[in-house]
Amino acid sequence: MTPGRFITLEGGEGVGKSTQIRSVAAALEACGIEAVATREPGGSAGAEAIRSLLMEGSDDRWNARSEALLFAAARADHVARTIRPALSRGAWVLCDRFVDSSRAYQGGGGGITDADLLALHGFGSEGLMPHRTFLLTVSPDEAARRLAERGGNDRMGNKPLDYQARLTARFVEMAQAETDRWRIIDADRAAEEVTAAILADLAEWLP
Amino acid sequence: MTPGRFITLEGGEGVGKSTQIRSVAAALEACGIEAVATREPGGSAGAEAIRSLLMEGSDDRWNARSEALLFAAARADHVARTIRPALSRGAWVLCDRFVDSSRAYQGGGGGITDADLLALHGFGSEGLMPHRTFLLTVSPDEAARRLAERGGNDRMGNKPLDYQARLTARFVEMAQAETDRWRIIDADRAAEEVTAAILADLAEWLP
Repeated sequence: MTPGRFITLEGGEGVGKSTQIRSVAAALEACGIEAVATREPGGSAGAEAIRSLLMEGSDDRWNARSEALLFAAARADHVARTIRPALSRGAWVLCDRFVDSSRAYQGGGGGITDADLLALHGFGSEGLMPHRTFLLTVSPDEAARRLAERGGNDRMGNKPLDYQARLTARFVEMAQAETDRWRIIDADRAAEEVTAAILADLAEWLP
Repeated sequence: MTPGRFITLEGGEGVGKSTQIRSVAAALEACGIEAVATREPGGSAGAEAIRSLLMEGSDDRWNARSEALLFAAARADHVARTIRPALSRGAWVLCDRFVDSSRAYQGGGGGITDADLLALHGFGSEGLMPHRTFLLTVSPDEAARRLAERGGNDRMGNKPLDYQARLTARFVEMAQAETDRWRIIDADRAAEEVTAAILADLAEWLP
């Protein structure tokens, strides 16, 4: 049994994270590896119930601190019920957003300190961190085009473009501060090329 | 305007907290004081939505850490949206359970440290503590009788009797460690006598 690997994809709205999760999962399965594709907030029954509270309602439904606690609660459930059991049986977990999204959204935009967010993650999920995190980046023009195409329609996706730009800057800052874990992937390219870049990076861990 | 006072009632199931909240609120209103009667988990729109997640479902729906984070999220919303605004306008807030219930239930029974629970409260609610906390205690026989009468029918109320005894011991321990804030009230008596004991203690703050 190969050791399980925990891979996360991060980035703003519309950079193609969920498409890449599907493609990378299919490629891993073709190599005989069990791939568990999941997402945050959500990914377990309890976390999906919390997701509804987070994604529905008006923009000011929650203050920043309640929101950070709800994300941490959902993540704790997701880690305990889905991610750790999968890793324990040797599966690879591919997760669309994880604690770094809390650090970028609640930390960067919401005014909560990074230390507080990591402390909540330490409490809820024993601080589980991914083995590898891919930051997908697209140019501002491409991001605007993709967002217009899909239509922002929840509490997280309908923020203005300058918010998205600050968010991307925050992600890049985190990636540059921890280069062993993060890889920055140019996602302005065709989806197949992005998948190939991700798989090339993961090759060292493949059987 | 008198300064707002934040009063909490604590204790196991069936000790008469909600009855006392109603009686004390009525007495305060008769003195010309705005009394806000509220409860946890809940007490604001967001916190009531989280309450449903906490009170419904099977006993193992949440692990102890997710549960503690959900309670802290609900409390943060309740404090920001209901309790602090009421205190700011000079109202007295009477709350059925508060952070001490988390300390007794998630801390005593759930295995989370008191320091961690207080840290979550510090993060979510800037550590707001009551001016006075009344611990209502009843004898084990009386507790069993009242619980049988009402029927335990949610995730918090349907724990066995020895659990209730350990819970009471944990409450008494907290009360004895912080005697300025806590008062232990014998609630084996008639409800009117319990109300009178509470009001006698609060008399120094009344106009």
